[in-house]
Amino acid sequence: MTGRTTSGPSVNEAPKADERRHAWAYLSAVTQGASRTVSAAIAEHGVVEVADAARKGSAGAELTAKLGPRAHLDTAAADLERLDRAGGRLITPDDEEWPAWQMLGFDQLDTATDAEGPPLALWVWGQRRLDELVERAIGIVGTRAASGYGEHVTAEITGDLAVDGWTVVSGAAFGIDAAAHRAALGVGGTTVAILACGVDRAYPAAHAKLLRGISESGLVISEYSPGTVPARYRFLARNRLIAALSGGTVVVEAGWRSGARNTAAWARRFGRPVMAVPGPVTSAASQGCHRMIREGEARLVGNARDIVEECGPLLGVDDDRDAQFVRALDGLSGDLALVYEALPATDACEPIAAAESAGVSVDRVRAALPLLEMEGLVQRDEDGWSRVAGR
Amino acid sequence: MTGRTTSGPSVNEAPKADERRHAWAYLSAVTQGASRTVSAAIAEHGVVEVADAARKGSAGAELTAKLGPRAHLDTAAADLERLDRAGGRLITPDDEEWPAWQMLGFDQLDTATDAEGPPLALWVWGQRRLDELVERAIGIVGTRAASGYGEHVTAEITGDLAVDGWTVVSGAAFGIDAAAHRAALGVGGTTVAILACGVDRAYPAAHAKLLRGISESGLVISEYSPGTVPARYRFLARNRLIAALSGGTVVVEAGWRSGARNTAAWARRFGRPVMAVPGPVTSAASQGCHRMIREGEARLVGNARDIVEECGPLLGVDDDRDAQFVRALDGLSGDLALVYEALPATDACEPIAAAESAGVSVDRVRAALPLLEMEGLVQRDEDGWSRVAGR
Repeated sequence: MTGRTTSGPSVNEAPKADERRHAWAYLSAVTQGASRTVSAAIAEHGVVEVADAARKGSAGAELTAKLGPRAHLDTAAADLERLDRAGGRLITPDDEEWPAWQMLGFDQLDTATDAEGPPLALWVWGQRRLDELVERAIGIVGTRAASGYGEHVTAEITGDLAVDGWTVVSGAAFGIDAAAHRAALGVGGTTVAILACGVDRAYPAAHAKLLRGISESGLVISEYSPGTVPARYRFLARNRLIAALSGGTVVVEAGWRSGARNTAAWARRFGRPVMAVPGPVTSAASQGCHRMIREGEARLVGNARDIVEECGPLLGVDDDRDAQFVRALDGLSGDLALVYEALPATDACEPIAAAESAGVSVDRVRAALPLLEMEGLVQRDEDGWSRVAGR
Repeated sequence: MTGRTTSGPSVNEAPKADERRHAWAYLSAVTQGASRTVSAAIAEHGVVEVADAARKGSAGAELTAKLGPRAHLDTAAADLERLDRAGGRLITPDDEEWPAWQMLGFDQLDTATDAEGPPLALWVWGQRRLDELVERAIGIVGTRAASGYGEHVTAEITGDLAVDGWTVVSGAAFGIDAAAHRAALGVGGTTVAILACGVDRAYPAAHAKLLRGISESGLVISEYSPGTVPARYRFLARNRLIAALSGGTVVVEAGWRSGARNTAAWARRFGRPVMAVPGPVTSAASQGCHRMIREGEARLVGNARDIVEECGPLLGVDDDRDAQFVRALDGLSGDLALVYEALPATDACEPIAAAESAGVSVDRVRAALPLLEMEGLVQRDEDGWSRVAGR
């Protein structure tokens, strides 16, 4: 063993890793989305080999049909550099942070078209590790034409989930999606946006600032190479990634026909919990949710606790502490429940503020708080009383 | 065969029928509710025989335990006369109008306490035939502490069901019950109130006028003899009759713990469809409904059509015309759906009024109406346009 020998692999591996990364970037850009044919070829022959064959036009007929039209466009180096400058990177199945178990969902599909395969690689904007972010993730999606009720409920539910340590995954669209991202950011939580275009494009343009905020605390993700413009079929493909990267999907409001129901259908195909939030039957924005619940396509959920109950066990987070916490919460009634609900999710507050919010006298709030503290549900510090996070 | 022989039976039967009616009235008043022991004894020995034995104190020990304490109180004649003067009557299993198939539900119960038996007889106030009234009946129940949303939705759903010829069964309580009765009366429909006290007592007192209205177009019903005061256990027993006399039960709003959920539990035990209407997750009045839907205890329904879809087939009312009607309604979208919904359920209105209500221009309403007419969904007369009743 000499110094040279020891350093040898890293000298040799670095260019190899770089070559592989370029190959993934090239194939991702050329494929423009997913392709089971391309994925299968990579699994069989290797990513560098498939990329080389594609560049030379020597891939088989089936592969050439998928890659041929764009095979001469090798933008990999430029794409990677462009994203690097913007604070992004390409995550490939070679990387430790590749969300491997989430991608297993694609193996469970009974039938799938060629384009319904797993993403070849993921272009991301942001610094966090993807596998850590999506370890405990919930997709929150819904109609662009959200009602005030829908946005309010999204903020409530998402805020509670984010405080509890769940990553909120959504699509950065207007309406429910944006409300979910904003609520997660608002409580200092983590959120992931999955786009139907390159991550260097702010779409919708009005969400440029929101997307920047998401990239700073979480990740903006796309399977499309930088510069790709949004297109209808890409939104549908994007929905499958929201479902794939989430431990469960919640639809807050959805009209009769809705992209959110498409995301929910994907979650169902992946065998993940699908949930829907009901609303007034007089509200058009809730019709899709009601239909999903009615048809048995989604389980009714009314709050973050219901959602954790559905998704927690599957993600192995129903540990003793969580179970104890949920039992304690479930046992609350009367003043205790009112006061607990009245405490803010993140900040602390004084009993008088909690009394006002709970609609209960200050004396009764003062009596309830020590009991809640004994249950391990609230805590006191110099700023006042606050909830204890569930985990 | 002589004239005397022919008239013989009626001369002999009238007193016998009268004697039997008195026996039912006596046993109903003495039992004060249902008793499987008493029902079984009547089935075995006959109603007159059981009444005689009870009066003489010669019934078996088990029967005496049920009847003994009140067996000396023979108020049958007085009760029958009292109700007769008020425009009421006693309906017994001897009568043609006895709702025989509805009562079969009691035979399907896996387990039941003695008091959970079928009613011995039913004291009613009103002129309509009971069996005809409950042939197509839906129970609509809910919390006394109804929200504005709950009352509005109850009125919408109940009005549509009543216009469609369904009898609306409820408990005449404050809140959802009253909204259901009122909506049925409001569209000239039929409604049945089941009380936890004698039908000669207006309970709650504030509903005296409502109960009179119900008695005039439908029936006010109780298994308790005239003069019986309401009691907590009678409300629970009353709930089982609402479920028993309805082809399905709908809970519109219910808190976490609610009598309406008790009625729903009875409907479930009888094997009848149980339905619940969702509402805002922020509303305490909807928590019980959401829980029932979430736990699979009730199917989510959002309108009368959903309810008919659940109950119609069981009651054999999914005839061609209904199916065609439902299909036509289901096919509506855009302007057609908006305009159809904007038309009043009973009155007719002019296009300009429909336009205002639908939030669609008059021109578009004028274009939509003839299309709806072709579908057989709306009709025009001298007063304007109106919906065609589903059946």
